[in-house]
Amino acid sequence: MALSDSIYKKLRRITGEDNCSRDMEDLACYAYDATAKIFLPDAVIFPGNQSEISSILKLANTEGFYVIPRGYGSGMTGGSLAVKGGVIIAMTRLNRILKIDRENLVAYAEPGVVTADFHKAVENEDLFYPPDPSSSKFSTLGGNLSECAGGPRAVKYGVTKDYVLGLEAVLPTGDLIKTGVQTVKGVVGYDLTRLLVGSEGTLGIITRITLRLLPLPRQVRTMTAVFEKMESAAEAVSGIIKNSIIPRTIEFMDQAAIKCVEKYLDIQLFRDAGAMLLIEVDGSPDEVEGQIRQLEDLLNGYHAKQVKTAATKEDAEKLWKARKTISPALFTYGPDKINEDIVVPRSKIPEMVRKIKSLKNKTGLTIVSFGHAGDGNIHFNIMLDKKNSEELKKAEATVGELFDFTLELGGTISGEHGVGITKRPYLNRELGPVEIDLMKKIKTVFDPNGILNPGKIFPE
Amino acid sequence: MALSDSIYKKLRRITGEDNCSRDMEDLACYAYDATAKIFLPDAVIFPGNQSEISSILKLANTEGFYVIPRGYGSGMTGGSLAVKGGVIIAMTRLNRILKIDRENLVAYAEPGVVTADFHKAVENEDLFYPPDPSSSKFSTLGGNLSECAGGPRAVKYGVTKDYVLGLEAVLPTGDLIKTGVQTVKGVVGYDLTRLLVGSEGTLGIITRITLRLLPLPRQVRTMTAVFEKMESAAEAVSGIIKNSIIPRTIEFMDQAAIKCVEKYLDIQLFRDAGAMLLIEVDGSPDEVEGQIRQLEDLLNGYHAKQVKTAATKEDAEKLWKARKTISPALFTYGPDKINEDIVVPRSKIPEMVRKIKSLKNKTGLTIVSFGHAGDGNIHFNIMLDKKNSEELKKAEATVGELFDFTLELGGTISGEHGVGITKRPYLNRELGPVEIDLMKKIKTVFDPNGILNPGKIFPE
Repeated sequence: MALSDSIYKKLRRITGEDNCSRDMEDLACYAYDATAKIFLPDAVIFPGNQSEISSILKLANTEGFYVIPRGYGSGMTGGSLAVKGGVIIAMTRLNRILKIDRENLVAYAEPGVVTADFHKAVENEDLFYPPDPSSSKFSTLGGNLSECAGGPRAVKYGVTKDYVLGLEAVLPTGDLIKTGVQTVKGVVGYDLTRLLVGSEGTLGIITRITLRLLPLPRQVRTMTAVFEKMESAAEAVSGIIKNSIIPRTIEFMDQAAIKCVEKYLDIQLFRDAGAMLLIEVDGSPDEVEGQIRQLEDLLNGYHAKQVKTAATKEDAEKLWKARKTISPALFTYGPDKINEDIVVPRSKIPEMVRKIKSLKNKTGLTIVSFGHAGDGNIHFNIMLDKKNSEELKKAEATVGELFDFTLELGGTISGEHGVGITKRPYLNRELGPVEIDLMKKIKTVFDPNGILNPGKIFPE
Repeated sequence: MALSDSIYKKLRRITGEDNCSRDMEDLACYAYDATAKIFLPDAVIFPGNQSEISSILKLANTEGFYVIPRGYGSGMTGGSLAVKGGVIIAMTRLNRILKIDRENLVAYAEPGVVTADFHKAVENEDLFYPPDPSSSKFSTLGGNLSECAGGPRAVKYGVTKDYVLGLEAVLPTGDLIKTGVQTVKGVVGYDLTRLLVGSEGTLGIITRITLRLLPLPRQVRTMTAVFEKMESAAEAVSGIIKNSIIPRTIEFMDQAAIKCVEKYLDIQLFRDAGAMLLIEVDGSPDEVEGQIRQLEDLLNGYHAKQVKTAATKEDAEKLWKARKTISPALFTYGPDKINEDIVVPRSKIPEMVRKIKSLKNKTGLTIVSFGHAGDGNIHFNIMLDKKNSEELKKAEATVGELFDFTLELGGTISGEHGVGITKRPYLNRELGPVEIDLMKKIKTVFDPNGILNPGKIFPE
């Protein structure tokens, strides 16, 4: 459905001409996200405030065009792609941190704030916003909320939805709503906040966020443990939780992940590593020391070949850089990537690891695994050349098989990336028809004319 | 709408005759909750499993009668009252703890489990389920979920919704749904779990709950601080949080609360206490010692007359008994009680305390304040004789005035008790018409024939 000139003129009047474009160079910049799939929108608009967004959405309803909200387009599942054309609403001008309330451990921010900037600002006040998606340097709070982003610290601190106290949003109809509270408790009416968080931009456009903060932990220490076998590392993770130790992160990297990072950064991380765990603990100095000692004993008990605690902040940062470089480094193995985000109960991590290994052997595909072992969230990535149709078919079948196995183990097919378009074909493997129908009806309540972010989550 | 004999027969066939009654003695037992309002139901039924509940709800839709789910009827706002008649579905036979999964820090339980029994069971496994509503000895998990119950430990650990990973429920149509996950992360589809939690039994009947657990803290210490003035206590609470100390509870009692407990239990708690704080810290032994020292310094800085740390577990239990006895002890002051549950930002606690005091002086009413100061959740109770119509009018006007002031301070009119029937007339002081309309439409999606728990939350 192309945009008529007259509608385009009306859009330009809402935000001013400088904040609305349909030049091909601009459209191309807003046609993709981290899935690398391309869908050209009909226009891209940059509203400056809630009222302009409301006007855009009202126009979308009367004139019948689609709108798609977008942060910085770092999403992994197509959430901000204009799959049916339409107008991209880029939220980046709403980028102010409005207030950090030290007394009440609460902050007010606009959705276009880059998450890492928000981290810096609150940490300057000795405060702490735990959710730390690996994309935090180039993703926005609004995007994080829409996908209910997680990150390494989720094992101890939970995920984005646990920190959102309230919202302001524009409904797909253009009406404005406030949800939630400014206090840490509130039970008046249904929890619309947690309906919007994780709704992947399909129920409304968030314009203002009230976030809960914690005091900044006084000390953080980072340690690594190298294992000969991935299974031992997986069992160690299980063992850590079973012994009631909750570090603030337990990340893992398999051999392929370690090797591609070493190659990409031209460094040597570890010698003969079959797998690696990256563990962070935080708290008071005494607490941290105690946890480090406990973990060292435990990891050695699980046959860790080498357990090291980073001596300085700089050493710790090097280790984290390696972990966060995996995503781009993967392309050492192939031009294309299928990137998944399953979660299994932690006690099932060893089984999942064995399954992935057996599929690697069976198919000959390059499958790299890493992720948030502490909460069972495994990112398995199949590296391939999508132009090789036989390889692509094998890869897609493998994804399906791993999804089914995930669900058999009591897990879920998405821990933090969302469903978007990439997991939409698999939605009914996890959700039943009654549940899907309920959610679609909720969608219709919010968006009677179906103009907001179509083609996402629910198969048609 | 009375229940016909033929419908009653059909109900009896679903659960068996022994599990369904319309004898007056039984109806009377299910006609009230903690509000002391009385609404006689037409029948009370005790299903044994999800399938029977499904059959009851299907019958309710085809025959057009109301159903009201009920735990142990300890709710504070009328959530389980049959305000328009109908059939009480007493959930008490679904009372099994199904599994405590130590490896994955997860438990599976039925809604009729008494919360304190659940606490005991998980603590026997060295595990911890933090939500601890003061009613835990006589309220159920299902009831707690329906109201999103809080409790003293919310200041550090959050509330019920933060611990529910997933649910099974029967929709008002009789269809069965599963929501959420068994893992600590999951973002597939909309968050139906947190739509059901806190929906006060109006969107579905919960039949199975997956709960997240934590490791049991190794040490807990309890301290009290007595102040000459309530305002100093309130400022100390603010100060504790501002200094980034998060104890696991910060409870307060005003002078009237202290005196009525002393009278009721025939003990002397403290001499000349204007107000008291009851503070609990938990963690490793070192952590706890450190926090106690920090708090002692801080509290003395806020002019605490007397700061004491309980030496033994038994001493600590005596202090908690005093705190939990307030509710029944209040009736020392009058035969009737209007009990509210507001939350204000913590920095506004002193202002709210001053407002309550000024209204006490202005009206001459007996207003007792106590509660969860750590999260700004103040239970103010007006003790009166409801048969004195002048006193009742004054009391209701005072409630309205305090609600308005709460909202002015950025708070909410209910932190944990829910809206039910008692706060329904005030709902539109906190929620706007667009928000209420959205919620009512969501209700209609779940309950197209409006048979589940009518007359609650939303004004007609």
